[in-house]
Amino acid sequence: MQQRQPTKLGALAAGLGLLAAVAAPWPAAAADAAAGKAKAMQCAVCHGPNGLSSAPDAPNLAGQPALYVAAQLKAYRSGERKHEVMAVMAKPLTDADIDNLAAWFASIKVTAQLP
Amino acid sequence: MQQRQPTKLGALAAGLGLLAAVAAPWPAAAADAAAGKAKAMQCAVCHGPNGLSSAPDAPNLAGQPALYVAAQLKAYRSGERKHEVMAVMAKPLTDADIDNLAAWFASIKVTAQLP
Repeated sequence: MQQRQPTKLGALAAGLGLLAAVAAPWPAAAADAAAGKAKAMQCAVCHGPNGLSSAPDAPNLAGQPALYVAAQLKAYRSGERKHEVMAVMAKPLTDADIDNLAAWFASIKVTAQLP
Repeated sequence: MQQRQPTKLGALAAGLGLLAAVAAPWPAAAADAAAGKAKAMQCAVCHGPNGLSSAPDAPNLAGQPALYVAAQLKAYRSGERKHEVMAVMAKPLTDADIDNLAAWFASIKVTAQLP
């Protein structure tokens, strides 16, 4: 039986395969912004129906980078970032929920006007 | 010499004076947005010159409620909220710096456009 020797091309292909495998869980890569929009209804009380804050101690989420939103939701979920309300809101979220919410808020276009 | 008796009007005036004294330390009440704008130049690398993020892991600060911005900067300064860069940025800030920065970012008007 012939044993296959690794070639440079084979090694490259394997390397690219590994890269793809590593890159796959990148937040919001396969995120569903429409599902995020539906899920975001529970955020609206404090963060506004358009992601513009309706509470003085709640941040605007509209147009925030997906990576940032996902990181914060995970930090609330793990308890690394502390907030009484957000701890409760983030606890039941799956990674997919978080990526979808992040994709939704990131998809809202914001413009800023300096005073 | 005639002694003045407290009147209802006098009591009201005294009460309003107390209210004003209590209200004075409210964040951003006496904040200087122009000073905050100057101080915010150091924020621009990550948070953008207009407060719209220029880094995927940095949030937009434009139009964020002053109370929220101040609370977060104080949390970074105390170490309650953790971030390698923000810990360094927030450490030297005085309470006045923080109120000024919060007033500046809150003064930027943002509009959101749903996709």
